[in-house]
Amino acid sequence: MAEFPRKSDLPVSLARRYLEPGPIVLISSAWQGKANIMTLGWHVMLEFSPSLVGCMISGGNHSFEMIRQSGECVINLPTTLLTDTLVGIGNTSGAEVDKFSRFGLTAAPARRVKAPLIRECHAHFECRLYDDAMVDRYNFFIFEIVKAQAAATPKHPETLHYTGDGVFMVAGKIVSRRGLFRPEMLYP
Amino acid sequence: MAEFPRKSDLPVSLARRYLEPGPIVLISSAWQGKANIMTLGWHVMLEFSPSLVGCMISGGNHSFEMIRQSGECVINLPTTLLTDTLVGIGNTSGAEVDKFSRFGLTAAPARRVKAPLIRECHAHFECRLYDDAMVDRYNFFIFEIVKAQAAATPKHPETLHYTGDGVFMVAGKIVSRRGLFRPEMLYP
Repeated sequence: MAEFPRKSDLPVSLARRYLEPGPIVLISSAWQGKANIMTLGWHVMLEFSPSLVGCMISGGNHSFEMIRQSGECVINLPTTLLTDTLVGIGNTSGAEVDKFSRFGLTAAPARRVKAPLIRECHAHFECRLYDDAMVDRYNFFIFEIVKAQAAATPKHPETLHYTGDGVFMVAGKIVSRRGLFRPEMLYP
Repeated sequence: MAEFPRKSDLPVSLARRYLEPGPIVLISSAWQGKANIMTLGWHVMLEFSPSLVGCMISGGNHSFEMIRQSGECVINLPTTLLTDTLVGIGNTSGAEVDKFSRFGLTAAPARRVKAPLIRECHAHFECRLYDDAMVDRYNFFIFEIVKAQAAATPKHPETLHYTGDGVFMVAGKIVSRRGLFRPEMLYP
């Protein structure tokens, strides 16, 4: 992939446009000179301001301790162009392979955290650990999104949504019902 | 709608097939002789066994106290057939209207909780409050799914995924990559 999607800054409160639909995301992290990537479908928006997102990161992932120790990560949004790549990432361990190298992905510096961005992705959400109260019991990390960037086009890229058992749903088609919403439920 | 999708029992651990992709769901609840429905997009799988799901239910919803007091709810999965209905439900308050009556929906008894099922929906997940430790700070309820039912067909119905501002993505198209998964990542 010779060209990368060009990203623009986005208000952090608009991260929900990309995360609330529930896509598989790629979580990048860095700790003690190494970087890693994992796939994640178990995430949830929790608040607009601060922009909070909760992530259930299983302790079996090599990324778990890297994220816990560094207190940071980047949530990257892959599109269907990266389908085989994300399946490969979810089926290998960072304990054994350098996933950026193995999958030909390009790390780029983030602005507010030390974890790298994955340039091939459509959007990046730089995260700092906000509350670890639920990590011991549920492996549930609450992050604050401190910086958001997304490609301007397409506005709603095709994303992958995992159902288990190797099968994904694809979302991309858009349906608007703005006319049926109360004005205070819409953006100004 | 004269006919309802016929539901079969499902192992509770398979709730993830329907919830993990991130669709808008309809939460039904009952308390002190009244039933209510709300829309929810801020939910996340947390565990397979017990089958745990986390839901961020804003305190501004009439359903919030009904669910907190009763400690129960049903997560119902609507398909795109119910698009206008779910937009209507999300834009009215149970403090003012009986949503089953207003939107022509059919309440049916659940098996394990007192909250009603919504028969027009594709699947039902009966929930009991499992952990309220994050409710005061984040309005985040952790429920155990104690009973699951789903229509046999279609196996992957078209669902709605909210992006904010009155706009939904539709998911329905299926992509399988089973052949690229490690065997232990698939169902036996």
